[in-house]
Amino acid sequence: MASKHPDAPELSPTVVIGAGLIGASIGCALTGAGVDVRLRDRYRSHAVVAAGIGAGSVGTPLATTVRLVVVAVPPAVVAPTVARALSHYRNAVVTDVASVKQPVLADLEAMGTDLGRYVGSHPMAGSEFSGPLTASPRLFADRTWVIADGTGSPEAVRRVEQLIGICGARLVRLAPADHDRAVAEISHVPQIMSSLTAARLADAPPEDLRLAGQGVRDVTRIAGSDPGLWRQIITGNRAEITTQLRAIRDDLDRVIDGLDDVRTVGELIARGRAGAAALPGKHGRRSDKALERVVVEIPDAPGALARLFVDIMGQGVNVEDLSIEHGQDREVGYLSIAVEAEQAQDLRETMDAKGWSLRE
Amino acid sequence: MASKHPDAPELSPTVVIGAGLIGASIGCALTGAGVDVRLRDRYRSHAVVAAGIGAGSVGTPLATTVRLVVVAVPPAVVAPTVARALSHYRNAVVTDVASVKQPVLADLEAMGTDLGRYVGSHPMAGSEFSGPLTASPRLFADRTWVIADGTGSPEAVRRVEQLIGICGARLVRLAPADHDRAVAEISHVPQIMSSLTAARLADAPPEDLRLAGQGVRDVTRIAGSDPGLWRQIITGNRAEITTQLRAIRDDLDRVIDGLDDVRTVGELIARGRAGAAALPGKHGRRSDKALERVVVEIPDAPGALARLFVDIMGQGVNVEDLSIEHGQDREVGYLSIAVEAEQAQDLRETMDAKGWSLRE
Repeated sequence: MASKHPDAPELSPTVVIGAGLIGASIGCALTGAGVDVRLRDRYRSHAVVAAGIGAGSVGTPLATTVRLVVVAVPPAVVAPTVARALSHYRNAVVTDVASVKQPVLADLEAMGTDLGRYVGSHPMAGSEFSGPLTASPRLFADRTWVIADGTGSPEAVRRVEQLIGICGARLVRLAPADHDRAVAEISHVPQIMSSLTAARLADAPPEDLRLAGQGVRDVTRIAGSDPGLWRQIITGNRAEITTQLRAIRDDLDRVIDGLDDVRTVGELIARGRAGAAALPGKHGRRSDKALERVVVEIPDAPGALARLFVDIMGQGVNVEDLSIEHGQDREVGYLSIAVEAEQAQDLRETMDAKGWSLRE
Repeated sequence: MASKHPDAPELSPTVVIGAGLIGASIGCALTGAGVDVRLRDRYRSHAVVAAGIGAGSVGTPLATTVRLVVVAVPPAVVAPTVARALSHYRNAVVTDVASVKQPVLADLEAMGTDLGRYVGSHPMAGSEFSGPLTASPRLFADRTWVIADGTGSPEAVRRVEQLIGICGARLVRLAPADHDRAVAEISHVPQIMSSLTAARLADAPPEDLRLAGQGVRDVTRIAGSDPGLWRQIITGNRAEITTQLRAIRDDLDRVIDGLDDVRTVGELIARGRAGAAALPGKHGRRSDKALERVVVEIPDAPGALARLFVDIMGQGVNVEDLSIEHGQDREVGYLSIAVEAEQAQDLRETMDAKGWSLRE
């Protein structure tokens, strides 16, 4: 990363406002590519921490020389921060990374801001962590980064494309309204559904939760996310979310009224199955290979998984996916290995011959 | 598994009625322990297939000699099948494996059945597969198996405990009403929520789904389950499910009406977080170790994961959990390795020194 990216001069200096996980990760990616990055944060200590992990420096650049400003502040304060950046850095392109695009644009228009130098964008990345200490220059590698179509002049858009290219992300162009509908569908509404499901568990007798298996854990995993961030994201996209939640409420009412009728329930399950199957598979396309799972018991001890993988390596199979399950009482785990269906039987036989105990 | 289990004579012969995944797996476990198992199925061919994989034999035993009958038929026909088994096998204890306990009991009582030899039970196991070909004697190992308290005489319960012991499951006693409430909370309602979420995706423009990340995939994974089975399970537990779905509808109404108000949304997210945290961790207890994730890029090619694990083995760290993520455009994958926090830095340094590329 020490050598300079060809686009680095055109982006230097870049100011990153907001040194949280996203801002600091962008800073690290740009700095690694040779861009001169200046970090700003409401709390200067955050900017100092981010600088300490290689996200840039804390010094203030000459405002008129700044080429790009990345606004990575909490959703609720994005629009005013963008407006101030546009007026302070008079020659810079300003982009934001907020997860909802129409309200920011509407707020900026209401303020009478000249939007030729503003490009709305949204990197679809994050993690269960937050804050600059967990930042990584590779946070956006192979992730989708949306540019809101119709924002910014062609030259301004070009500069944000350079940013996205340096971060290693996959560019998708979407009209702001289409973006906001899409993120409601695939992110905000699933988040609310996960929270609604998990909220019932908070009221359940604790002894009932002993029966919990993997299914409920999957459904409620994202319910563990940061409440402060999510309530801003959700209220920011409330128009789209309201429409979709009303449709879900209609479906829910139909199910509640139709629980006596296997057809109503069967219809919902079948629609859900179709929806789950419509999600693109890995590498962004629908899965075109039939996969099968081989489940092997592994001792819950250092090195056991490694020995298992050494045996799999002897096979030369391509592991498509894997997951670990744990038993509840004994110190035992199961490794579920997904391989192409035609390789599964061979793998089972090899594992069996090597003395591994198979479950399925 | 060739040597006889000490309880085998007391259970021989056992009749398994219904040679699907659950019935055939029980047959395999019992046969492996030396029990004489006889298989019956509405479709004789299923019983023959199950016999072919070691679940027992197809021949009919002398009815009066049968010690145990396991009813593993679809939910809707459990009660009449149990009633017929009780009157046909006059000296046998009869148990069922249905996922809802009160309705079976109520139906049997309504038929005037003498319930001294009936024990309601529910093994909490299954997989995304169905049918006898995917059966395994280890399907129940370390899984919870519930006995419905208050059903059967002490001798009858003792015989079902022997069955559960041979299958390697963890026995939990619950009153039928408590069981049905618990499975609604941790299984049936999450299943419906997953289907409701996934059903919206079926109606979404396919191009929107390009933005989907891991979160929505987790929430909708179980929506891919078998509709035929699930509509029977759900209608069978409709009283409990209705109560809980109404509570969720109240929460949903509150969210829809309160999307303008960050407090309402924040409250839901916070309750969901508490619920998700209340789920017991692996080994049936709340996690008492701080875990950290090390994310390593892996080439999507045969053997790459194995080489990676060889390097981890050299470290002697205990892998607590792992998952694979895939990039969308490039043939690249990331392995996320959860280890105890104090081992994470060492692991990162070793991986880095061995030339692996780390993401976080």
